[in-house]
Amino acid sequence: MQNTPASKRIVLALDAMGGDHAPQAIIDGAALAVKTNLDVDLHFYGDEKKISPLLEKHPKLKALSTIFHTDEFIANDEKPTVAIRRKGTSMRLAVESVKEGRAHGVVSAGNTGAYMALSKIILRPIPGVQRPAIASIIPTINGPAVLLDMGANLECTAEHLVQFALMGSIYAKDVLGMESPSIGLVNVGEEEQKGHESLKEATSMLKAMGNLVNFKGYIEGDDIVAGKVDVVVTDGFTGNVIIKTGEGIVRSMGKILRKTLMQNFLSRIGALLCIPAFKKLKSAFDPARFNGAIFIGLKHVAIKSHGSASAKSFANAMNVALKMIHHDFRHQIESDIESATDILADTEISG
Amino acid sequence: MQNTPASKRIVLALDAMGGDHAPQAIIDGAALAVKTNLDVDLHFYGDEKKISPLLEKHPKLKALSTIFHTDEFIANDEKPTVAIRRKGTSMRLAVESVKEGRAHGVVSAGNTGAYMALSKIILRPIPGVQRPAIASIIPTINGPAVLLDMGANLECTAEHLVQFALMGSIYAKDVLGMESPSIGLVNVGEEEQKGHESLKEATSMLKAMGNLVNFKGYIEGDDIVAGKVDVVVTDGFTGNVIIKTGEGIVRSMGKILRKTLMQNFLSRIGALLCIPAFKKLKSAFDPARFNGAIFIGLKHVAIKSHGSASAKSFANAMNVALKMIHHDFRHQIESDIESATDILADTEISG
Repeated sequence: MQNTPASKRIVLALDAMGGDHAPQAIIDGAALAVKTNLDVDLHFYGDEKKISPLLEKHPKLKALSTIFHTDEFIANDEKPTVAIRRKGTSMRLAVESVKEGRAHGVVSAGNTGAYMALSKIILRPIPGVQRPAIASIIPTINGPAVLLDMGANLECTAEHLVQFALMGSIYAKDVLGMESPSIGLVNVGEEEQKGHESLKEATSMLKAMGNLVNFKGYIEGDDIVAGKVDVVVTDGFTGNVIIKTGEGIVRSMGKILRKTLMQNFLSRIGALLCIPAFKKLKSAFDPARFNGAIFIGLKHVAIKSHGSASAKSFANAMNVALKMIHHDFRHQIESDIESATDILADTEISG
Repeated sequence: MQNTPASKRIVLALDAMGGDHAPQAIIDGAALAVKTNLDVDLHFYGDEKKISPLLEKHPKLKALSTIFHTDEFIANDEKPTVAIRRKGTSMRLAVESVKEGRAHGVVSAGNTGAYMALSKIILRPIPGVQRPAIASIIPTINGPAVLLDMGANLECTAEHLVQFALMGSIYAKDVLGMESPSIGLVNVGEEEQKGHESLKEATSMLKAMGNLVNFKGYIEGDDIVAGKVDVVVTDGFTGNVIIKTGEGIVRSMGKILRKTLMQNFLSRIGALLCIPAFKKLKSAFDPARFNGAIFIGLKHVAIKSHGSASAKSFANAMNVALKMIHHDFRHQIESDIESATDILADTEISG
């Protein structure tokens, strides 16, 4: 039907059984994603009896899809250490298909711990990368920014943080189209003497990097949403708490505003008139728009969708995967990590 | 003028020179605070030439006030390690007056690092308290809650966290009037196997405490503003990032909403009708309402106001000080820490 040569077609492996609304949200999300992109083939891993009827509703999607049946899947509350040992789960098969060259990337909304472990074990880190990290696009008043690590590495050395800065910078360039993304390290103050030892060391290292990174120094919690930098670097514990605190506040403010607006007749009328403005505000901070976290530092593309993702939200995660596949991340990361290692080695020698 | 016996009158020492809007916001704030409370004498430390004319505008306040003149004060951007060595600064004199029994408590909006260090050195921790912490009241959709540590201790052991839980619980009881405040430890998941070692240890310890604390286990970032617990316990690095990220998001959402509402005629009209609802939302998350962080674990009452505090906001910080002075914090903390130490010693023996 399409005239795209086979060699240029992208194949995406999808774990059809992962997430709170699987497989419905996965199939409907894929249908949304292919509306604007027909140069992709989709491999669904999961229960054929459940996936097949859902595909019937989307003839365009069906034409691009292949189902790889398995009865096994990983539950959300399953212990990752146990889940990753099971063979033949939809998540594992999808990840393995990328390793084996049958797909260019994988997307799952399933058990985060299991997905992280399986991706790392099967897809392997890029040589030189000490710790792959989870990077996500976050909303700021100056537009989207990148935050990493979102939770893959709870404790980080200075060197891990420096590698996060390099990888986050490449991500911002390739996916957000930024030319020289600015980088900030999360701390409790902007003065150089503040914070953990690892932050002070990372600062010296990043300063030594010259043009390799556009390092702006420390940033504080309120600088993040103010959009002070394009790439927010922090350890996985802090990153996870930042993202979840932020999402919680946005949700809570929305709830309170809705409730108080409905309490009185005049403000109900007012609210009707304000609907376009409220929609803009909601869209500016909508988690669905920013769905699709990436395991950066792995040899292949593995994207994690929110477990509670809607179809629209899952489609966004798929689009992140497609964007990444079009860029040559791996060699950019390899090259920058190598340059950084050389610079640090020289600095130690000359120091 | 008042008939309150001298023994019942409270004396509050105020650093009149600390904060972005000093001494104006300090004097005006004090004037607001004494509107509802005349049983307090105020000792202002700072430049008499600046304070005196400001007091002229508030005759009621003037009648309750004494000025202790000094030319020295600590700047906001002064290095704390240098600032605390200087004698005769308004901040130091105010703190010393509490130690010497001439005031019941102290409030400053000045340099946080210097104030923290001076308070700790001069007012001393309660015996048994390993690390005094900064506790603050935070907004949640279920009403106010307590968060500690806000930044006094960047790295914390399990035992520090356990003491924070005990002290935060007493604070919630005395200042917020809660009977059995529930306690949560900030982590990146709710499962027991998640997070830093110190969190796992603190969990075992808190579980062993029985009725001494109402411990609910781990909470995540989004549980904080959802009001899942009354006392949020975390290390000072994470606590600081949570508070600042939260304040930043509330501010940014307000800005974007204002901007989008003004973009079109109908939504401007709508916004006018919604003003009462917007005011409620603003008030629910207004930092000014929650101003007044406490150094909990010290022998005397020391309250830190936001550096950028308005008069209204500074008055709130003074009210927190007055509430605390009315409760016998010190002996409650001493007794609970002793009970906890006994329980932990027994557990170790029996384990």
